[in-house]
Amino acid sequence: MSGRKPTITDVAALAGVSVAAVSKVVNGKGSISAATRERVLTAASKLQWTPSAAAVALRSAKTRAIGMVAKRSPDLLSADPHFSLLISGIEGELSPLGYGLLLHIVGEQPGPGEPDPEEAAYRRLADERRVDGVVLTESRIGDTRFELLRTLGVNAVLVGTPWRADPVPSVQATGLGSGIRAAVDHLVGHGHRRVAYVSGPEDRVHTVHRRRVFEDALAARGLAPSHSLVSDFTAAGAVDAISALLADRRRPTAVLFANDSMAVAGLSAARRLGVDVPGELSVIGHDDLPLGELVYPQLTTVRQDLVGLGRAAARVLLASLGEVDAEPVEVRPPELVVRESTGPAPDRT
Amino acid sequence: MSGRKPTITDVAALAGVSVAAVSKVVNGKGSISAATRERVLTAASKLQWTPSAAAVALRSAKTRAIGMVAKRSPDLLSADPHFSLLISGIEGELSPLGYGLLLHIVGEQPGPGEPDPEEAAYRRLADERRVDGVVLTESRIGDTRFELLRTLGVNAVLVGTPWRADPVPSVQATGLGSGIRAAVDHLVGHGHRRVAYVSGPEDRVHTVHRRRVFEDALAARGLAPSHSLVSDFTAAGAVDAISALLADRRRPTAVLFANDSMAVAGLSAARRLGVDVPGELSVIGHDDLPLGELVYPQLTTVRQDLVGLGRAAARVLLASLGEVDAEPVEVRPPELVVRESTGPAPDRT
Repeated sequence: MSGRKPTITDVAALAGVSVAAVSKVVNGKGSISAATRERVLTAASKLQWTPSAAAVALRSAKTRAIGMVAKRSPDLLSADPHFSLLISGIEGELSPLGYGLLLHIVGEQPGPGEPDPEEAAYRRLADERRVDGVVLTESRIGDTRFELLRTLGVNAVLVGTPWRADPVPSVQATGLGSGIRAAVDHLVGHGHRRVAYVSGPEDRVHTVHRRRVFEDALAARGLAPSHSLVSDFTAAGAVDAISALLADRRRPTAVLFANDSMAVAGLSAARRLGVDVPGELSVIGHDDLPLGELVYPQLTTVRQDLVGLGRAAARVLLASLGEVDAEPVEVRPPELVVRESTGPAPDRT
Repeated sequence: MSGRKPTITDVAALAGVSVAAVSKVVNGKGSISAATRERVLTAASKLQWTPSAAAVALRSAKTRAIGMVAKRSPDLLSADPHFSLLISGIEGELSPLGYGLLLHIVGEQPGPGEPDPEEAAYRRLADERRVDGVVLTESRIGDTRFELLRTLGVNAVLVGTPWRADPVPSVQATGLGSGIRAAVDHLVGHGHRRVAYVSGPEDRVHTVHRRRVFEDALAARGLAPSHSLVSDFTAAGAVDAISALLADRRRPTAVLFANDSMAVAGLSAARRLGVDVPGELSVIGHDDLPLGELVYPQLTTVRQDLVGLGRAAARVLLASLGEVDAEPVEVRPPELVVRESTGPAPDRT
């Protein structure tokens, strides 16, 4: 080949097949016999030919990239490894197929006079044909992202529960709610009667859903929440919440937080105020991030299968692209992980 | 030219310049003198040569994506938000220019008979022309990634110190070492005489560098490390290290860890063993991840400007792509952040 870079035509010639057949093999599209496929791959290997992404994209309109837009302030993002776990799961499915993950981190709030940064990111991904699909996270009440992506012609899958019964592709754990119910049972079983809940932002679908599960589980035991506070997933918000709870004359003996970062920040703030955890106050988190095992006392928490959710979401997209069979990936149900931050209610000890 | 279609090589030959120079003129990239440009255009015109649209697209089409390959097990990745902070910084520069970050998470170890997963990822990014450049992290001793990327023709920038004085584009904080020196001064000033160091893996350039800074800073005060342990950045490794240190009859009164996750895990393990922090043992971390503020006692640590490092790395790549001026981004020097996990040495209290 005298130094010239081999082309798809060279591969087709050596394999004795048409350029279209090589293209089919490369793009994994259309029917092609095993023998032809073998001949094409052997020829490509002999010539050391690899199709460029741009060339493949031109022929097949696939970019072999999946997009994910994380709408969080960079600070919050790094404090909460939630996304890292989702990404691990997504990458686990994409990597073997040679797909990449195109990540955009955008702020929570648009600048003055600017469009919503997440929406702008999707428009750009679509306009520039950067991705074959996107993974959406943090289902919000009144979410308009699916309508937008449908308009833009971009495949999408949601990690979580859609805000209404839209025919929207989404992945969720089986047995949703089982973890929070187990947490309530664990506390009530240890004699707790005054149990508080500190939620995330109100616009999240899971905030509303989880609080209802919490209230229903208490009601099933003839109890009501002692307090129900809305917070914002930040450490500062958790410290404010725990301070308010502990200042109350009828303070709770146990608190559930909507994520682990808030739970650890709240637990630490309580100990700094001289409150023994779990002697005087039991604390439960949500997600089971590695953080919970690093601290002392180790955090009791509701484990979410975030890696499984990421894998399942990637599979839905890859199936819609014809890359894999549409077999659902199992996402383990949430479960309670009991560690050191919960114990008997103080009035029983 | 006897009916044969002229090629870029013919144009270069007639103009008396390199093929690369013709390419530069065609793609409007890189610096080229007006005279050379004139000669190329004249030759192209004489030969009636026009670059094919596809060829131009392949050579000049920017992918507007930057790659980053994180070589960590997914577990370790999510336990250590180091990468999240770097990514925040990188995204902060890429987003306004419409660039995305293509992230690949690969395992630390290749499968049996498989090539190194990080190397394989770079080869794929290059072969498929997926990115305009890559950010490398975790400079390693004997690092061959730059040679590989040079061979592959991929722009690269390293976050950290190259392992030898290679002419490798890299970004580093000014005043490297100042944070660890301040940590040693802080401890010695509080009467500590037995100070231990728990490092990360030995193949990292920063492991060797930081340990030397630590030893030199102690030596300047007439002291030597009481212990020097090599660990692996994991919580389990940190727990093993702290257990070994506390079991020693002449145990240290202060310990520096090479990252915050190890420091928090070590601190928690010490408290679980009934050791008061900082009353009996002072603990210092490295990086200043959000984690350190969540825990009780809050972690004293050496702050690294990871967001600034990410921004600086992105700017170097964007400048090499002609997207921004090559003005260096300031990366703040490491500094000691004193919180609650350090105090006077126990024999002085």
